[in-house]
Amino acid sequence: MPTSAPPGNRFERRRAETRGALVRAARQILAEPGDASPSIQAIAERADVGFGSFYNHFESKAELFDAAVVDALEEFGRSFDASLTGIDDPAELVAAGFRLSARMADSHPELMQVLRRHGLEHLHSERGLTPRALRDLEAGMTSGRFTVTDPTTALYALGGSLLSLIELRFARPELDGDEAASNLAEMALRMLGVPAADAHDVARRPLPHLA
Amino acid sequence: MPTSAPPGNRFERRRAETRGALVRAARQILAEPGDASPSIQAIAERADVGFGSFYNHFESKAELFDAAVVDALEEFGRSFDASLTGIDDPAELVAAGFRLSARMADSHPELMQVLRRHGLEHLHSERGLTPRALRDLEAGMTSGRFTVTDPTTALYALGGSLLSLIELRFARPELDGDEAASNLAEMALRMLGVPAADAHDVARRPLPHLA
Repeated sequence: MPTSAPPGNRFERRRAETRGALVRAARQILAEPGDASPSIQAIAERADVGFGSFYNHFESKAELFDAAVVDALEEFGRSFDASLTGIDDPAELVAAGFRLSARMADSHPELMQVLRRHGLEHLHSERGLTPRALRDLEAGMTSGRFTVTDPTTALYALGGSLLSLIELRFARPELDGDEAASNLAEMALRMLGVPAADAHDVARRPLPHLA
Repeated sequence: MPTSAPPGNRFERRRAETRGALVRAARQILAEPGDASPSIQAIAERADVGFGSFYNHFESKAELFDAAVVDALEEFGRSFDASLTGIDDPAELVAAGFRLSARMADSHPELMQVLRRHGLEHLHSERGLTPRALRDLEAGMTSGRFTVTDPTTALYALGGSLLSLIELRFARPELDGDEAASNLAEMALRMLGVPAADAHDVARRPLPHLA
């Protein structure tokens, strides 16, 4: 049952609330440093729901944590859709994605910590930025804006570069985030075959506000 | 006390063995999927050492796990030093690093799983591939082989791309690893400003065997 479905009655509403509370608690845990692996009891307490209700929604902790990452990925993807409408150039879309991600490290730290810590293993995900990046990549390949040998490796290289930018924002907060993001976006565009001078300019075009 | 120091007497030898056993056990755990966080008791049992001896070597689990990642990074770095002697072109060194990493996912799966799962947070490390990549990056910038705006962002972009290649090898083992590595190395070289045709060729030069 998707959490976004309008709950039909009090039972369904309460059920959706419980699931949402568990996912939010798991997201908080995933955003925290360390390899802590709290018990289901501790997660239920953190979510302020009964221990027994956990198994009404999830078969295991792994399933809950996976749902929490997917939830973060979807929020991340929706932010981009809302912010980037009206941009048609695939190169500008890629660059804006990098630059908005750096800003989201400041504005949405919990979400971005989840991606920082768990994004790599979800690079193949059908949620979040991956399908959007693939769409932009294919549009750019079709139009000749991008020249890459293989879309799968290009997608992974883009994802890895984006994760390194998120890591850089958190590990080196003293660096200018906008400048680091433009530098990294510029390199990502070069990687996709955009000429150097063009990549430099596109990575510094006016950036839409985050929706 | 570095584990590589020749132990002077039986006491020191046994002490080094115990530390090594704990680090090896931690490396195994770090290479495994999931967020399992075993107790110190369980780690000591896996290392086949007494529970009490843990605290002779490490103050906390976090310190042990950090030592285990550093150990993996150092082994990774030494493999490259041993394999890549004789290559002078910084572009070829970067490409060979990517290509050997993909092969090491097959030949050294535990080591590479540790990097896959914990490499991002060690991108700023003074161990492993980071200082070597920085050295090659600076050599290439000095000689004009590379044109990048900022070495720090370039270093992060390289590291993120390399991690995405390692992730790709494990997540998509059915893909041709050598081909994926050459494709990714080619994109990394473009990113550093190497012209496209040149990047394509350098990423496909004969590769030294892994030492």
